[in-house]
Amino acid sequence: MADVTMEKIVSLAKRRGFIYQGSEIYGGFSGFWDYGPLGVELKNNVKQLWWRMFVQERDDMCGLDAAIVMNPEAWKASGHVSGFADPLENGKMFNTMLMTSVGAAAEATNAYLRPETAGGIFVNFKNVVDSLHPKLPFGIAQIGKAFRNEIAPRDFIFRAREFEQMEIEYFVRPQEWETAFEEWRQNVHAFNEAVGIASGSVHEVEVADPDRAHYSKRTIDFEFDFPFGRKELSGLAYRTDFDLSAHAKASGVDLSYLEDAGERFVPHVIEPSFGVDRAVLALLASAYTEDELGGESRTYLKLNKAVAPIKAAVFPLLKNKPELVAKAREVYAMLKKQIPQVMWDDNGNIGKRYRRQDEIGTPYCITVDFDTLGEKPELKDTVTIRNRDTGEQERVSIDNLLTRVA
Amino acid sequence: MADVTMEKIVSLAKRRGFIYQGSEIYGGFSGFWDYGPLGVELKNNVKQLWWRMFVQERDDMCGLDAAIVMNPEAWKASGHVSGFADPLENGKMFNTMLMTSVGAAAEATNAYLRPETAGGIFVNFKNVVDSLHPKLPFGIAQIGKAFRNEIAPRDFIFRAREFEQMEIEYFVRPQEWETAFEEWRQNVHAFNEAVGIASGSVHEVEVADPDRAHYSKRTIDFEFDFPFGRKELSGLAYRTDFDLSAHAKASGVDLSYLEDAGERFVPHVIEPSFGVDRAVLALLASAYTEDELGGESRTYLKLNKAVAPIKAAVFPLLKNKPELVAKAREVYAMLKKQIPQVMWDDNGNIGKRYRRQDEIGTPYCITVDFDTLGEKPELKDTVTIRNRDTGEQERVSIDNLLTRVA
Repeated sequence: MADVTMEKIVSLAKRRGFIYQGSEIYGGFSGFWDYGPLGVELKNNVKQLWWRMFVQERDDMCGLDAAIVMNPEAWKASGHVSGFADPLENGKMFNTMLMTSVGAAAEATNAYLRPETAGGIFVNFKNVVDSLHPKLPFGIAQIGKAFRNEIAPRDFIFRAREFEQMEIEYFVRPQEWETAFEEWRQNVHAFNEAVGIASGSVHEVEVADPDRAHYSKRTIDFEFDFPFGRKELSGLAYRTDFDLSAHAKASGVDLSYLEDAGERFVPHVIEPSFGVDRAVLALLASAYTEDELGGESRTYLKLNKAVAPIKAAVFPLLKNKPELVAKAREVYAMLKKQIPQVMWDDNGNIGKRYRRQDEIGTPYCITVDFDTLGEKPELKDTVTIRNRDTGEQERVSIDNLLTRVA
Repeated sequence: MADVTMEKIVSLAKRRGFIYQGSEIYGGFSGFWDYGPLGVELKNNVKQLWWRMFVQERDDMCGLDAAIVMNPEAWKASGHVSGFADPLENGKMFNTMLMTSVGAAAEATNAYLRPETAGGIFVNFKNVVDSLHPKLPFGIAQIGKAFRNEIAPRDFIFRAREFEQMEIEYFVRPQEWETAFEEWRQNVHAFNEAVGIASGSVHEVEVADPDRAHYSKRTIDFEFDFPFGRKELSGLAYRTDFDLSAHAKASGVDLSYLEDAGERFVPHVIEPSFGVDRAVLALLASAYTEDELGGESRTYLKLNKAVAPIKAAVFPLLKNKPELVAKAREVYAMLKKQIPQVMWDDNGNIGKRYRRQDEIGTPYCITVDFDTLGEKPELKDTVTIRNRDTGEQERVSIDNLLTRVA
């Protein structure tokens, strides 16, 4: 990873269909990016892994998908209308929420595109409690788009004006906050590891008193060694009861929680916050590898199988031999039925296919050749399976292929 | 389904955590809705089924995830800036695109929140062709949020200002359009069936010449018998080469396609377009059922297993018997490892749990009782599995449970 430059990542991302400049044919639009065919699969895999790990596999978590446009009163209560600002060059403060206007003509109301997904969770706290009656501690998770009118968007998808977040508000009894904070600190690392972000490149930074939001008693930034420097990848904050209390006060709705024992109080909150696009960029930076294989230099993405956009590619050795193509199609259909992210590839020669699959991070390449058809009877119904990282090839029975690839 | 009223659907959706009014504690915000813990799982299941069916399982399709905010020139070229308007009461036309302003102070540019996802596909046509070199016919699919400043949002999530679309632009040789149109007409029905939208309630409506957009040679609306009337659920349009040609002209970028044989032309387009929220609403309306079971009236959602937010719930017969709870936890953990959308439920008595799971559409309820522990030795390590639709219970070995539920 040491030699990875942004130029190399951006170039591969565009060339192979991971990430394009937004509205590129119109000269782009600063701070907006489009995910291409490979990128959308990679990004969806990252989001699904997160959702499965932090929502579906746990008994104390549930999900939510709130609207991007909320009643503007919510952003007044949260402090964003008065305080979510960056300084311009002339020293004036500039609110970085994107604004819009909702409703026709005289009835129009100014509103904001959410600058973070968290707000949607807090305003739905009571709804979730009333629907599910969860016991403390419990958390609500959300994945979705957010918008910030960055004065200077930069560093590819790192600082964009439209981006995606994965956020959790984990509600606890006030005296439990330190235990929950520690648990989520470890969970952040567990996610990074599961998704394939190089753990040696992730650094915890305790945010010191003067830099923390006034309501936060403790904040950790998780920084990553991006090619352009060590920058924030995700965060973990203890936000006390600041948000629920502020929304309760502004809305006039009681957002306290009633314990079985009869005690009533406003829960405190631990907030782990992840950037989807930053995770994708950290992944690409972690996975980008250049080495030599068989005397030739090559580039490949060392992506975890869990997030790789294509889990395996199936080739016929030669595309002009109908019997090879038919058998390869059979193998392909069998795999694809169980693992939809499997790809057919018959363009160019085998060497070119390997290079192409290496560049998009496909863990396995499977070739159907004449031995598969029984040219050597003892090899009938076997295929070669090539390992992306080592380049090594192995002969595997078609019956065992699914277990090997899944 | 005949007796389903919107009141009943809206009430169940809120009570059970499917869909809440957006920003409800602030009095709501007209035209915006939030998906709760059950709703987000249901909606994600619908989207994943669509994506698997139309992108991952096909060799002629790929995905995309473009930014919601595009260079505004794209919406001029597509005709939305001049023509995407509804009449106000006073007869003036009102452009229903939500606007925003991007960039700080003097450098600010007016921009739009996309009113449909299709635009992002057309502007990326060349990028996708350059990355993947697909052969015609091929399609690009996208799922994502879109926004329309509806003058009168209404009918729950049917006509909202923020909504989600699943769209495909399928690129064909001009002479192939009728074949592709017919194929996608059937695919629309196949999706409805797979997802569980009552097929008898879906009606094709040929859009007549004067009502069609000028560039479209044929359009079919797929209407559904919603409780508030027969309304559009999805659409299928033959858009000729209108979009690619308009973007090519406005951007100055060649958006033609070069065939292997050397012929160069602008592909024509078949566009199947689905509303995620409308699909969810049609699903809920199709699934909502009231019947009598064991002499008591009940309400349940007859959801397909593929989209049900919870595939199975696991109960201990009694929650105050540690040996029952321990065994039930074991069964739960075994299932959940393979099927994350499995739920633990030990609230109230068995009857109440059944009612609750019926209301959220859980196909199976699994109860661990004293026989599971071996009270009747011949029943050791078996559980009861209850079928949501019939209410019938069966005794099943724990070893066979996964196959039954999956």
